[in-house]
Formats: sequence, C-alpha cells, structure tokens
Amino acid sequence: MTNSESFSSPFPSPAQRRRDRESKRDAVLKAAVRLFNEKGFHATSVDDIAQALGVTKPVIYHYIGSKDQVLFHCVEVGLSQLLDAAEKSHEVAGNGRERLAAFLKLYARIIMDDFGLCVIRTSEEQLSPESRVHFRALKRKVDEAIRRHVADGVADGSVETDNVTLAAATAAGAINWTARWFDPEGPLDRAAVADFIVNQLMFGLVPREKLTEI
Amino acid sequence: MTNSESFSSPFPSPAQRRRDRESKRDAVLKAAVRLFNEKGFHATSVDDIAQALGVTKPVIYHYIGSKDQVLFHCVEVGLSQLLDAAEKSHEVAGNGRERLAAFLKLYARIIMDDFGLCVIRTSEEQLSPESRVHFRALKRKVDEAIRRHVADGVADGSVETDNVTLAAATAAGAINWTARWFDPEGPLDRAAVADFIVNQLMFGLVPREKLTEI
Repeated sequence: MTNSESFSSPFPSPAQRRRDRESKRDAVLKAAVRLFNEKGFHATSVDDIAQALGVTKPVIYHYIGSKDQVLFHCVEVGLSQLLDAAEKSHEVAGNGRERLAAFLKLYARIIMDDFGLCVIRTSEEQLSPESRVHFRALKRKVDEAIRRHVADGVADGSVETDNVTLAAATAAGAINWTARWFDPEGPLDRAAVADFIVNQLMFGLVPREKLTEI
Repeated sequence: MTNSESFSSPFPSPAQRRRDRESKRDAVLKAAVRLFNEKGFHATSVDDIAQALGVTKPVIYHYIGSKDQVLFHCVEVGLSQLLDAAEKSHEVAGNGRERLAAFLKLYARIIMDDFGLCVIRTSEEQLSPESRVHFRALKRKVDEAIRRHVADGVADGSVETDNVTLAAATAAGAINWTARWFDPEGPLDRAAVADFIVNQLMFGLVPREKLTEI
C-alpha cells in the first residue's frame, strides 16, 4: 500500500491512475471483441461499443482510438495470449510431445474464446496498413511458436513427422477451424473440445492396436 | 452422331445447342471463380468477369444471372465436387478407414482447387437469402458425408474415435484451413499436401513404435 492509499487520499496515485486506465482499456476491448464476434466488424460501430459500456463515443477514442485501432488491439490481445501459452508450455515437465500437446490445448481454448476467435475472424483488409504489418508479424510469431514446439518433439523423438511446417499447419488448421463451428452452448465446453482435438491430432484415427499391422 | 451432324448442317441440333450452352456456362463460372478467389467477391464486378471472357455484361446475365447468382453457382460446383468425391469413395476397395482416407484426399485436392477454395472463402452474407438456404443445405450434406465415412470406419473397427461428429469436424478443419495457407507455387503440389494432411490425420504425431508405451 502506498502512503496516499493508507491515508485514503481523494487524489489517486500514479499507480492507481495507471491501473484505472488499464482496466478501462480492458473493458473497452472486452465489449468490442464481443460485438465484433457477434455482429461482425463492419456491422459494429464505435457507438455500439460505447453504448455497451454506457459511455459516449469520445471515451472510446480517448482510451483506444478509431474502430480499426480497437480491432487491432483486440487481435493483439488474442495473439499475445497465444504467444504466452507457447512460452508457458516450454516449462511443462515431460518430453517435447507432452509440451506440444499442452500448448495446443491452451491454443485451442484461446481460439474458442473471445479474443482468439477475433484473431481468426479478422482479415487483413479490415486493418489499416500500419496495423496490418503488426498483425502479420504477430501471426508469424505464433506460427513459428507452433513449429518450434513440433520441432522440439521431433528432436527428442517423441513426435514423428517428416515436415514440421506442414505438421504445424495441419494441427493449427484443425484448431483454427473451430472458429466456424464451436458452439459455447453445445454439449461440450471449450476445454473438452480442446482436449478431444489435440488427442486426435496426437493419436490419429487409426486404432492403436491396429498400428502394428499397417 | 446425329443425322444433322453427319451432313454438317449449319443449324445446330438441340443436343449441340445444349452442349454449347453448358460449355459457355462452365467458362463463365471458371473465369468468375478465379476472379473471386484472387480479388475477393466484393472487389469483382460482372464487368470484370465479362472482360476476362472477352464478352459483354449481358452475356453473363444471360448465361448465369446476377453476381450473387454467379457466386452461388460457383460454390454449387465446388460442393457438388465434394459430394461426388464422397460418393465415389464408397466404392473404394478396402475397409472403412481406407475409404475415409481416399475421400479425405479427394476432398483436400478439391478444397485446394478453384471451386473448393471458393466454397471455403464464401460467407453466407454474400449470398441472397434464397441462395443462402441452398448453400447451407449443400454444406450440411458434405458434413454428413464426412461423418458417414468416419462412422463406417468406426463400424468395421478400422477407425477409432468416441465422437464421430467432432472427429469429422477436426479432420475437415485441418483440410479446410489450407484455404488460408496453401500456395500453388510452393514446393509441394495439391496432391502431395493432400496426402500429407490425410496421413497425419490418420496416424497422428505420436511415433508409431512409441504407441505401445503410452
């Protein structure tokens, strides 16, 4: 606790002001990403976002900026979540395959959640030329992170593939496509669907006891 | 050969007129689907399609109709190709898994080709309400065809999964996502990429000799 807090000063400390600003930015992005996912980017106005938060348009411009800047910050949050998951999974105990599986399960849960979904649904044309460059660079980092996890598994012999790039693209594709079909109201929740897909990617569709025959 | 053909009559027979009309429709759809895939649906005008064929706009309207009807007929061709592949694969010799693999390889080649790519890239909002109903119905048929192939493999014990619907969605997703990354100018052609993805879907990423340990 800072001094000003312990004395209950009515003047917020710089740290309080920063936290306040961050929590307002977060609230704007959370409201925006839901509207973008529900109604689509084009059909959502800055007014809609402001209304969802009970504020006026200038508040949105003040905390984030124009509509395409709001969209860029939404995909930035989603892509950062994916990169954090890749980093965190390097620390999972076990072999490369176990770390890859842990990462892909986190990846899938993020993709089925608001910010991840927005990453998948956003096309480059919706962003300003400048944001587009950042968007591409972050997406490339995520692709590299998946390939690195696959390659780590290949290196320690716990993953088998003769093309790391295609293997990573196939796995990511199966997960990214959930953006088109996953229904949060459906019988299985995000975690269960994530586990199912990653198990199928790891073990395939061939019955295990049959593999020796093939 | 019909009589009129053997006498080289300058008046086309009804069969010739039908073939002529069909080949013109095909040419319009082929030119259109390439433009839609390259430039996007919104950025392509009926004039662009006409110009690509060296004809005038009314010719396009005469053979197909409005721009959204052209788009609908393009996705209809792609979806018919996928349904034909599903049918043909039922006749492949072998067990359910072999038929599923044969189908998914054909499916993947179609998705990486012009009309299949257009199916994946087209969103319902681009179609008229009437076309949208047909589009959805055909897509549902394709989804059912994939599930039926998976279920056939489960029934004869050559495929292992405890959720046919999710297994089919995972496999289709890995393939459909190629629409975002497959590059016809890249090192591997459509057939090689199709084979790779389907093998990965069948055998997974776990080394086969390790499966007995898990």
